[in-house]
Amino acid sequence: MNILIVYAHPEPTSFNGAMRNLAVEVLSQAGHQVEVSDLYAMNFNAVTGPSDFTGERSDPSRLSIAREQTHAMETGNIAGDIAAEQAKLQRADLLILQFPVWWFGMPAILKGWADRVFARGFAYMPGRKYDTGMFAGKLAMVCATTGTSADTYAPDGIDGDILSVLWPIHNGLLRYTGFDVLPPYLAYMPGRLIEAGRAAQLAAYRERLLTIDQTPRLYFHPAEDYGPNERLKPGVLARSGVQRNV
Amino acid sequence: MNILIVYAHPEPTSFNGAMRNLAVEVLSQAGHQVEVSDLYAMNFNAVTGPSDFTGERSDPSRLSIAREQTHAMETGNIAGDIAAEQAKLQRADLLILQFPVWWFGMPAILKGWADRVFARGFAYMPGRKYDTGMFAGKLAMVCATTGTSADTYAPDGIDGDILSVLWPIHNGLLRYTGFDVLPPYLAYMPGRLIEAGRAAQLAAYRERLLTIDQTPRLYFHPAEDYGPNERLKPGVLARSGVQRNV
Repeated sequence: MNILIVYAHPEPTSFNGAMRNLAVEVLSQAGHQVEVSDLYAMNFNAVTGPSDFTGERSDPSRLSIAREQTHAMETGNIAGDIAAEQAKLQRADLLILQFPVWWFGMPAILKGWADRVFARGFAYMPGRKYDTGMFAGKLAMVCATTGTSADTYAPDGIDGDILSVLWPIHNGLLRYTGFDVLPPYLAYMPGRLIEAGRAAQLAAYRERLLTIDQTPRLYFHPAEDYGPNERLKPGVLARSGVQRNV
Repeated sequence: MNILIVYAHPEPTSFNGAMRNLAVEVLSQAGHQVEVSDLYAMNFNAVTGPSDFTGERSDPSRLSIAREQTHAMETGNIAGDIAAEQAKLQRADLLILQFPVWWFGMPAILKGWADRVFARGFAYMPGRKYDTGMFAGKLAMVCATTGTSADTYAPDGIDGDILSVLWPIHNGLLRYTGFDVLPPYLAYMPGRLIEAGRAAQLAAYRERLLTIDQTPRLYFHPAEDYGPNERLKPGVLARSGVQRNV
């Protein structure tokens, strides 16, 4: 497989950094091609705006990001740093997002990578979403660290089910664009672990990386379960309660 | 009330811009003091990193954002652009986040505002979260536009219940730090509306802004519903199914 790890942490010696390093090592040894986008090291521009579009604008007088992304993709005028990430994504069979959960989501530098790289005309367009998404056939996995315990992210935990917290990423960013989505790998509170605990975490992550083929994907309703208004058809029962609160 | 509107859209003539302008007008006329942080116009730095800390670091050899935020808040060495936003937040009774939903969340520039401004030692610290959060007594509201329909964000819609999509912001960012949270105001697909539809949307938003006092807050379980492991106590039933999928 070609694997792209998008890594968002400012400190190389962090636990996120250790997970990134481990993934590169384990997956390369297993015969995969691994690329890393180290967003902090790249000083990646997180903020989508007019400079994302290097050619003549579709509408120079009024900035619609979606319209200009579409136009720039059609005319080959998307900014170079975006095009480079899109090329990595294009050749990736597996995308790993490696980040610390900050305010219940991705660090802004990674959210900005999504805002800019998952451009309209590249990552989605009319009629191309979910089952017919542009990245159908690709796999994705969230690998994240948290500042609070696994209990707080249990379904009855105070922070909310981790799958609810990650829903905007799993369903919104990844499944929307056609990815099959692996269950997330979460390292809870690595900062509070002693050395042995961190080693155990990394050993478990290694095991996970080596068993991707056997790991069931997260469940999302298929397109045929939805009616023309994009709501579940009457009578369709959730076949899994995991990813959907109806 | 002192009201802070944090606005994240690159185009002043956007519908988000219209909502921002309307809120300033309506709330000022109603006798409130209104401040706006126009993040794109301010060219706000979205990426937390070493330059957030202007004094001697707690640990110069290894960057922990949480540790350095705490240290910088204690020593008065947080970066000036962060301190300015913190001062606005400090004096605000109501915080309005005005943004387009991009990839099922906040634009990166707004996520970065949260990552940097909601610093440890300012927005949270040990023992100060949820009911005992630092911003207890303040109100917050999300005002957002979407690119897809209200049907897609219904509880049985393909994009997922809008309250699930916003859960990381409502519970994670806002309630976690002590805010009471108003139901979000959503303008669905304003780009597809004809002029009359946009006018109706703005009229409804005006009405909402003038009836904040009478608007019930979103429900979150109170602290006493949770056991020492921060999971719901056995026997505690969800008194509302809206914000919690257990």
